[in-house]
Amino acid sequence: MRKILIIGIGSGNPEHMTVQAINALNRADVLFIPTKGAKKTELAEVRRDICARYVTRKDSRTVEFAVPVRRTEGVSYDGSVDDWHAQIAGIYEALLSKELGEEGTGAFLVWGDPMLYDSTIRIVERVKARGEVAFAYDVIPGITSLQALCASHRIPLNLVGKPVEITTGRRLHESFPEKSQTSVVMLDGEQAFQRVEDPEAEIYWGAYLGTPDEIVISGRVAEVKDRILETRAAARAKMGWIMDIYLLRKGADFDE
Amino acid sequence: MRKILIIGIGSGNPEHMTVQAINALNRADVLFIPTKGAKKTELAEVRRDICARYVTRKDSRTVEFAVPVRRTEGVSYDGSVDDWHAQIAGIYEALLSKELGEEGTGAFLVWGDPMLYDSTIRIVERVKARGEVAFAYDVIPGITSLQALCASHRIPLNLVGKPVEITTGRRLHESFPEKSQTSVVMLDGEQAFQRVEDPEAEIYWGAYLGTPDEIVISGRVAEVKDRILETRAAARAKMGWIMDIYLLRKGADFDE
Repeated sequence: MRKILIIGIGSGNPEHMTVQAINALNRADVLFIPTKGAKKTELAEVRRDICARYVTRKDSRTVEFAVPVRRTEGVSYDGSVDDWHAQIAGIYEALLSKELGEEGTGAFLVWGDPMLYDSTIRIVERVKARGEVAFAYDVIPGITSLQALCASHRIPLNLVGKPVEITTGRRLHESFPEKSQTSVVMLDGEQAFQRVEDPEAEIYWGAYLGTPDEIVISGRVAEVKDRILETRAAARAKMGWIMDIYLLRKGADFDE
Repeated sequence: MRKILIIGIGSGNPEHMTVQAINALNRADVLFIPTKGAKKTELAEVRRDICARYVTRKDSRTVEFAVPVRRTEGVSYDGSVDDWHAQIAGIYEALLSKELGEEGTGAFLVWGDPMLYDSTIRIVERVKARGEVAFAYDVIPGITSLQALCASHRIPLNLVGKPVEITTGRRLHESFPEKSQTSVVMLDGEQAFQRVEDPEAEIYWGAYLGTPDEIVISGRVAEVKDRILETRAAARAKMGWIMDIYLLRKGADFDE
């Protein structure tokens, strides 16, 4: 039966690769690589670097495929994502049946960890549910940008014995700081931190984490938010793209 | 100046080690290894295996140290942890000044990732604040049991565009399922999942993740909770210890 490996490759530093991920890369006959447009050439470069460094078998090959753009006009967020996943599932299905022999092993390389704000697992499950191509699959974890953020700032994610929330920019206002003392925000197109009014709130922000272009800024939100906004805008203009993440905190370890 | 490396070594599978962690291990002149009693001999075995596999320099040495037991009687939870950390900080300080030369590099090996429900970073910060020994330090991320759990169950951590909470058994009742559709529970001494009454709630449970003894069970809480309780009790009796984690979920990706 065909075998799929969904491999987390870390958040931008090729040394985030685990031994498990390196071994999985070398089990694959075919490496499936999404092309996401010219803007993120640095990321494409890191992925090429990972393959060049760690793929030691000579007989595997790389198959690039285009990822469609998600249609957002005239549909709800859920509907938009649902349609988009269905479209990508069709692409995966075609790749598996055309590019992989019946006993072949294919790998999808995923930034960070396939479990965290990534849909490769759910799209592969869709392909499975369609029942057109039979295959087994495994997931290999990888270092996420959240871990790279905490490592670079040298901070624990959680306060002692306290909960942590991971959320999106769109939903941040529902939780921080009233309901959660620690909120991590991923996928924030609107820089929701600038609307945090609490004078005690602290932010730990990072962009391009793990890469040579990494930038980190931390401090009270009120004191550093303008610097983050300016730094972010300048970096984005210079690089043509940005990936960033941040942690918001209010309170201390032993404050009860 | 002395240098400390706080290295995440993954959650039990030696192949969770990243290239960055392997390189860090090999920068250390001294590897500081806590001894946590005879019960967790399998874990001690994995750590020895990691050092044997990945430490290639011949001139580093290992220094074992005993971790005191946390006093819990007659003090609050916060007070108990605070005192315990102060005690361990004293031990770290003595280790750094006695075992490391002024230009030496020492490594603390941490299960999982130093950011997640681990206090090595905050204890090292305490030692720094005491000002008796000068040192610099870095944090190297590692694969957590949370990632191993999701990989073994082949599930995304979050529902599409939705938040996730990471919490403790003690606090689970504050959030799931009313306030959070996905809650991950670490540090649960009381198997709080058995008090989840919602008939739609699902659980993804795992113990000894990443090790050859790994056990995973999933399903509706109502249908599998007894099996998890029995499996957990039997495994704990047989092994003499247990480390487990679980994810609770209610709802689906596109349910709004």
